[in-house]
Amino acid sequence: MSVKAKAIYTFQSENKEEISIQENEELVIFDEHSVDGWLQGVNSRGEKGLFPASYVEILRQRSNSNLTDSSISPAGSLGNDSPHFPSTPNSTTSFLPNQGYYDDDDDDWDDWDDSSTVVEDDDPDHPRRGSGGPNGHAHHSPNSNNPNVHYRAKPRMERQDSISSSRKGSVVGRNLNRFSSFVRSGVEAFVLGDVPMMAKIAESYTIEIGPKGPQWKESPQPFSCSIEDPTKQTKFKGIKTYISYRVTPSHIDAAVYRRYKHFDWLYNRLLHKFTVISVPHLPEKQATGRFEEDFIDKRKRRLILWMNHMTSHPVLSQYEGFEHFLMCADDKQWKLGKRRAEKDEMVGAHFMLTFQIPNEHQDLQDVEERVDSFKCFTKKMDDSVMQLTHGASEMVRRHLGEFRKEFHRLGSAFQCLSQAFMLEPPHSSEPLNNAISHTGRTYENIGEMFAEQPKFDLFQMLDKLSLYQGLLANFPDIIHLQKGAFAKVKESQKMSDEGKMEQDEADGIRKRCRTVGFALQAEMSHFHQRREVDFKDMMQAYLKEQIAFYQRVVQQLERTLHTYDSL
Amino acid sequence: MSVKAKAIYTFQSENKEEISIQENEELVIFDEHSVDGWLQGVNSRGEKGLFPASYVEILRQRSNSNLTDSSISPAGSLGNDSPHFPSTPNSTTSFLPNQGYYDDDDDDWDDWDDSSTVVEDDDPDHPRRGSGGPNGHAHHSPNSNNPNVHYRAKPRMERQDSISSSRKGSVVGRNLNRFSSFVRSGVEAFVLGDVPMMAKIAESYTIEIGPKGPQWKESPQPFSCSIEDPTKQTKFKGIKTYISYRVTPSHIDAAVYRRYKHFDWLYNRLLHKFTVISVPHLPEKQATGRFEEDFIDKRKRRLILWMNHMTSHPVLSQYEGFEHFLMCADDKQWKLGKRRAEKDEMVGAHFMLTFQIPNEHQDLQDVEERVDSFKCFTKKMDDSVMQLTHGASEMVRRHLGEFRKEFHRLGSAFQCLSQAFMLEPPHSSEPLNNAISHTGRTYENIGEMFAEQPKFDLFQMLDKLSLYQGLLANFPDIIHLQKGAFAKVKESQKMSDEGKMEQDEADGIRKRCRTVGFALQAEMSHFHQRREVDFKDMMQAYLKEQIAFYQRVVQQLERTLHTYDSL
Repeated sequence: MSVKAKAIYTFQSENKEEISIQENEELVIFDEHSVDGWLQGVNSRGEKGLFPASYVEILRQRSNSNLTDSSISPAGSLGNDSPHFPSTPNSTTSFLPNQGYYDDDDDDWDDWDDSSTVVEDDDPDHPRRGSGGPNGHAHHSPNSNNPNVHYRAKPRMERQDSISSSRKGSVVGRNLNRFSSFVRSGVEAFVLGDVPMMAKIAESYTIEIGPKGPQWKESPQPFSCSIEDPTKQTKFKGIKTYISYRVTPSHIDAAVYRRYKHFDWLYNRLLHKFTVISVPHLPEKQATGRFEEDFIDKRKRRLILWMNHMTSHPVLSQYEGFEHFLMCADDKQWKLGKRRAEKDEMVGAHFMLTFQIPNEHQDLQDVEERVDSFKCFTKKMDDSVMQLTHGASEMVRRHLGEFRKEFHRLGSAFQCLSQAFMLEPPHSSEPLNNAISHTGRTYENIGEMFAEQPKFDLFQMLDKLSLYQGLLANFPDIIHLQKGAFAKVKESQKMSDEGKMEQDEADGIRKRCRTVGFALQAEMSHFHQRREVDFKDMMQAYLKEQIAFYQRVVQQLERTLHTYDSL
Repeated sequence: MSVKAKAIYTFQSENKEEISIQENEELVIFDEHSVDGWLQGVNSRGEKGLFPASYVEILRQRSNSNLTDSSISPAGSLGNDSPHFPSTPNSTTSFLPNQGYYDDDDDDWDDWDDSSTVVEDDDPDHPRRGSGGPNGHAHHSPNSNNPNVHYRAKPRMERQDSISSSRKGSVVGRNLNRFSSFVRSGVEAFVLGDVPMMAKIAESYTIEIGPKGPQWKESPQPFSCSIEDPTKQTKFKGIKTYISYRVTPSHIDAAVYRRYKHFDWLYNRLLHKFTVISVPHLPEKQATGRFEEDFIDKRKRRLILWMNHMTSHPVLSQYEGFEHFLMCADDKQWKLGKRRAEKDEMVGAHFMLTFQIPNEHQDLQDVEERVDSFKCFTKKMDDSVMQLTHGASEMVRRHLGEFRKEFHRLGSAFQCLSQAFMLEPPHSSEPLNNAISHTGRTYENIGEMFAEQPKFDLFQMLDKLSLYQGLLANFPDIIHLQKGAFAKVKESQKMSDEGKMEQDEADGIRKRCRTVGFALQAEMSHFHQRREVDFKDMMQAYLKEQIAFYQRVVQQLERTLHTYDSL
């Protein structure tokens, strides 16, 4: 049964299996059951292909009303249990393209469209919205086609207004900007004591005093995790394809297979839960050429770095949802675990309750100075990482462009010269002609070597820089949390001094602010510790590859020079 | 006494001591005595400086006639013996800028303006005309400002019409194109027997049969010659400057000092005399920045290559004018030698009389095929030399531009990163920061190494390619001589067969054509012999420098990598 539909948004095709549709364009749909949020159909120019279900309204044939106010229903938003869309005349519920929906009905073991899926509709900044499927185009970064400008995800903060407003009578003023990360993250509510202590908290993360100050206590079970064998899989009769990765944690014998969208689910859980911790964004999506070898390779390298950061982090690595992601191979269990993770109450403000902090006294002024210094540092590091990313990207471009071209050109010219010399056999020495020709091939080869080299050094550098760009991008918001907490302490102390607040309450605020300060310092310390290791490794690996490269160039040239020896 | 003058040609200033003048512009001249063909004065825009004397007409104050047909006289064209220009009303003798004049009155020992100077007014193609002084702008190559397109002098051929027309009764038709090199060089006259054998010929050049065919007999006294110490000299109260080179032939103890214009004088003598021999052009003039270090260095390197070709050539190296150039240190003797060289009768057509050829029979058909093959070869070699010149020039540009820039950029970014890390002393390792900073300096340094490297390899390659461009550019005309001679043989044989010519006369033509053929083959052989040596040397030198360069890069990187070892 073919059904008519009308495009409610313009959609630009970005893969060959997709078709572009214009706002108000009439479309014919082959099957109103969307798959992964996509419908198949024909546009008014006769092009056949896929487009996002949420971009169109299905036009009921039994309804004769005109296009603009006909009975409409969002396709694909109700999942596969309701293949027949109810006729809802005058309905205005057609979904916005960036509304969260999960429709994955042919991916039988990871059915995400159950009602327990948290609809993340309270965060206008969330960059991952509507991108559950690998082809979710709803939220393209405007820079996604520019390899030199890297996508930076802002950390997601849960708004905790409902918590803070549930408790009356607090006398310290609340921030008027309800969208500030301090408020949205729930840290304001936590500091003001609006988050009720829970009877039983299963999770606990300890902050201890190390040689350089507060630090996360190491995970009792440290492990690493490999990501291997990206493999192309198809579904939807071969039209839609995706890549599956083999994920093997070091402390488990068994591997699991995960798609990018599973990483994306995990990433969103992490953002949801972990206040005060910098969760690096996933490797960016790429609109076109998703299955080209280079892209797959790049995404794999960057997922590995992302995973290394996850496993190296004492808090993140112990997250139950992460464990579930790493180990669950059973469909039913996966669903259950997903729901459990999504129902986790210890998120945002409540997550702050899970910290065990040292008794050691810290002067809040000192902590503030330390945080300010870290803020300056992250700004400067962010700038220099950006500068190095730019430099390395330009170097890649030159290696693939000018360097390759010029060595090639020189090589061709030598070969041409050798061919000229061959025209006069009695008067020219064949060994010399061969040597010159060999020199030509050598320089052509050196050109290719230059073009290949970034794969061995600059790409790895760019991968690591991208990870750090993601980590660094989170700190302004995280630092803002601590700043907000300090402001509350000062305010409450002043009120207490003026007799407008009980000293007990002011002390409570100060105590909770210490928790925020310890957590932030632990996170800062972890960042520095990883940074030292990562950048040392990065620099050494880069230099080693560079040395090996120029040595290979020297070897090539030496071999070539020897061909002249016998002349 | 200041004198008025009118510009008869537009002249564009190309050095800071020069001023531009527009056609018809009125000028004030400080002194009507030109120096080196230059006058000093003020143009209508009030700019003071030098301009070529031949570009202006002196306006006599005693004459009141209007500008266009006033009594005019070329400045500087009559030499310093006649400081007062005769008033010649209605004269139309204002010299063209490319007419030959030599005016060198302050250069006391090489006074070139004597009446015996051969006025080279019979060759419209002569590229060197009027460029006796190092500043002669009269004949700028249109490409002289483009380093990638090299100036190619066409060999100068003397027209020998006067000789051929002096003899009546020759029955073989003459070429109608009197400007063809065959005619202008005098080879037509020689082949047709129009050049009378002279009673006493002091010069003699022997062609012998070598393993690969006819070749020049080696010079009995082979030698080499160094060119060193380019030194800036000034004259004309310091306004005009020039460079003097120390020239030391290996078989003489004493050095002589020569300017570029002396080389130019020698070059013009060589073009004048040596038919059938490829005389490479001198390193090109450069309009601006003549005294910049790089230009002086480049000219010196190229003069050395030119000199090496001269001394390696069995015929050119024995030329009396060359000997004079190499040895004469005395002013009086120099003048005498110059006049003698300029009065040399064994030039052009007569030079053909100086060859001693082997008795060996050569089938003319074979010779023609050999020449045709050489023609194809020179064409192809010329193309590939051009291509290699282009490739090497582009590589120079990249070394100085993109390569340097990108390594620099990367180096700066590393240093910036190190500075960021230094902001958090307790959390960062000073040795790592220092190592990263060191890496930054290393890459900046490598950028400089890339920019410096062309001086050690590509420049030398370009020098040699430029010499060969000059040599190759002469062959089309030289081959044309032989083609013309063959045509005459065929024509005369046909006439003899038809009884229209005595067999003796036809045999004479054939015999003289053999001389042309032997001479050309000897020159071809010499070219190949030098080419083999020169290009082998060029390639080896280039590869050695390239290896040394990349080894230095490796060493730099290795030293840098070691700074991470202790971390």
